[in-house]
Amino acid sequence: MRDTFNFSAGPAVLPEEVLRQVAEEMLDWHGSRQSVMEMSHRGKEYMSIHAQAEADLRELLGIPAGYKVLFLQGGATTQFAMVPANLLRGRKSIDFVHTGEWSKKAIKEAKLFATANIAASGEDRKFTYVPARADWRLDPQAAYVHICANETIGGVEFDWTPDTGDVPLVADVSSSFLSRPIDVARHGLIYGGAQKNIGPAGLTIVIVRDDLLGQANPGTPTMLDYKAHADADSMLNTPPTFAVYVAGLVFQWLKRQGGIAGIEKRNIEKSQLLYKLLDSSGFYSNPVDPASRSRMNVPFTLPDAALDEPFLAGAKAAGMVQLKGHRSVGGMRASIYNAMPIEGVQRLVEYMREFERTHG
Amino acid sequence: MRDTFNFSAGPAVLPEEVLRQVAEEMLDWHGSRQSVMEMSHRGKEYMSIHAQAEADLRELLGIPAGYKVLFLQGGATTQFAMVPANLLRGRKSIDFVHTGEWSKKAIKEAKLFATANIAASGEDRKFTYVPARADWRLDPQAAYVHICANETIGGVEFDWTPDTGDVPLVADVSSSFLSRPIDVARHGLIYGGAQKNIGPAGLTIVIVRDDLLGQANPGTPTMLDYKAHADADSMLNTPPTFAVYVAGLVFQWLKRQGGIAGIEKRNIEKSQLLYKLLDSSGFYSNPVDPASRSRMNVPFTLPDAALDEPFLAGAKAAGMVQLKGHRSVGGMRASIYNAMPIEGVQRLVEYMREFERTHG
Repeated sequence: MRDTFNFSAGPAVLPEEVLRQVAEEMLDWHGSRQSVMEMSHRGKEYMSIHAQAEADLRELLGIPAGYKVLFLQGGATTQFAMVPANLLRGRKSIDFVHTGEWSKKAIKEAKLFATANIAASGEDRKFTYVPARADWRLDPQAAYVHICANETIGGVEFDWTPDTGDVPLVADVSSSFLSRPIDVARHGLIYGGAQKNIGPAGLTIVIVRDDLLGQANPGTPTMLDYKAHADADSMLNTPPTFAVYVAGLVFQWLKRQGGIAGIEKRNIEKSQLLYKLLDSSGFYSNPVDPASRSRMNVPFTLPDAALDEPFLAGAKAAGMVQLKGHRSVGGMRASIYNAMPIEGVQRLVEYMREFERTHG
Repeated sequence: MRDTFNFSAGPAVLPEEVLRQVAEEMLDWHGSRQSVMEMSHRGKEYMSIHAQAEADLRELLGIPAGYKVLFLQGGATTQFAMVPANLLRGRKSIDFVHTGEWSKKAIKEAKLFATANIAASGEDRKFTYVPARADWRLDPQAAYVHICANETIGGVEFDWTPDTGDVPLVADVSSSFLSRPIDVARHGLIYGGAQKNIGPAGLTIVIVRDDLLGQANPGTPTMLDYKAHADADSMLNTPPTFAVYVAGLVFQWLKRQGGIAGIEKRNIEKSQLLYKLLDSSGFYSNPVDPASRSRMNVPFTLPDAALDEPFLAGAKAAGMVQLKGHRSVGGMRASIYNAMPIEGVQRLVEYMREFERTHG
């Protein structure tokens, strides 16, 4: 096991055995005498990598028939525009549940296309919770309902799937993708960047229900049209081949971990270890409502911001990096994605106890 | 040197020493204890990689002040929409020089935004030449003039920079990027996908003159607005960090080859070796006008398509792969990008002579 644990919020830690395999295959993938980076995307070698990655993702998430899986580029930020460009279907408004920074960005971009209704918001309590379904004011005429399943900055996560009736549910799962089961059939569209739980930045995965395809707004650029990508099996132009390859290796690693059920068990264990410490401490604080706490991103503060630098320096000396909180909120943030070993969280908890003892 | 030469049109061969370095640094970049894939794009490690890549590219191409360099995603196909979304500046039409398949795709997409005038076309001679500047019918009111500097499928390349007066010149240089000098100051905008001469698919480089920024069409999605990317130093959202890293290593490799002047000399030598054989043979044919022949992509046919399969099988046995021509034109295509060693072209030429001797 590596001697340093990386708590980056993304791009983020990847499984060590995946990185080792990538390094080993760098000059010769499976006897092809080519690096995956050098392969034509139309050749049989890359086509097999691409097809296997999709098949493994479908198996992991139990994606039902009637949904397309797309391997795209541009990150969730591109999806903030691409979703309304495709899913308005002549309607005039979109319902948003506003749970923090990433919701806010999605809402802002959607306003280029339609009216963005805030059906519910956590702003009244500084975005420290997911508003209960009973408090949402949904419009049955809305084109879709958009949620951010996990707010990477605020550390606020849905642990339930909202019922939105006949209005399609759209979920940005960038920072919780593959960390827990997701009932795909209850969604119209699911999207996420790869650079948290899946692979290198530059790959974006979209899972979309077939009936929502083919209704893009007039004048939508081809590269923003889901149907064009679906019809071309995500090879409308050269896909981000190397990123798809690494993602495919991560999917295979996940299967070796017992699939989503297996990794979820570990994610619960890791996050409970950390939240238990936070709750038992008068030194560290996490402001998030316990029912809405993220299993992936755990922000916390020390009693005095002047302690932040010593905390980070000590953590680095103890083999833990990237613990600094997002610049917009300060404090600390421990991102403990799928590939973070439990040993990393254990080391962090021990270090935090020791730091509290010596600085508390 | 590797025992197999890869003539893929893209994604394509990369320098062996770059791939070895990528493999070596996979688990620990410069003592950071992280893979580049795992680094926060806001951290000092990745920021240094990103800044160095831009600085090296500016040095290699001699990019003057007053131009921004953007590291984007989505390939040239996204640029086919992004250029008109940003450069119309209230104008109604775009002038295109139509030299083949990639011009055609750019023209088709531009029609979503404006009138596409064909100022000149090689169609009368089956796209085997670049129309002379004297024959172009340019409109002084056009928003810009678009050329495809090298047609990857047809093997037709500009070896001159057209004068378009006060109308900005826009060049798609995807498959000739960094293979020869380019007078950036005579262009308004230059763009290209990385997956030929630069690095992994999933990175697109745009070089744009400052005065063309900030005039995007109303309603343009943020991710399609050059100014938004320029203002954020290409970190509007998570950039394709690993692809930028590999591109940066290729830029450093290019500097060790004597920069663009050095690599151009080798590219001339390699392409002349191959064209000399084609011209001296009654067996192989290349239809392109000698003045417009691509140094990067050399399509050729055998006298009988029934010989294609034996040719490819023999080539593979002799350590040469990916020589099959594009599915739209058939025959063969040897892509001999910067990273193809002269030994690869020599081996191909020898093999072609031998094949002609035994099958001619």
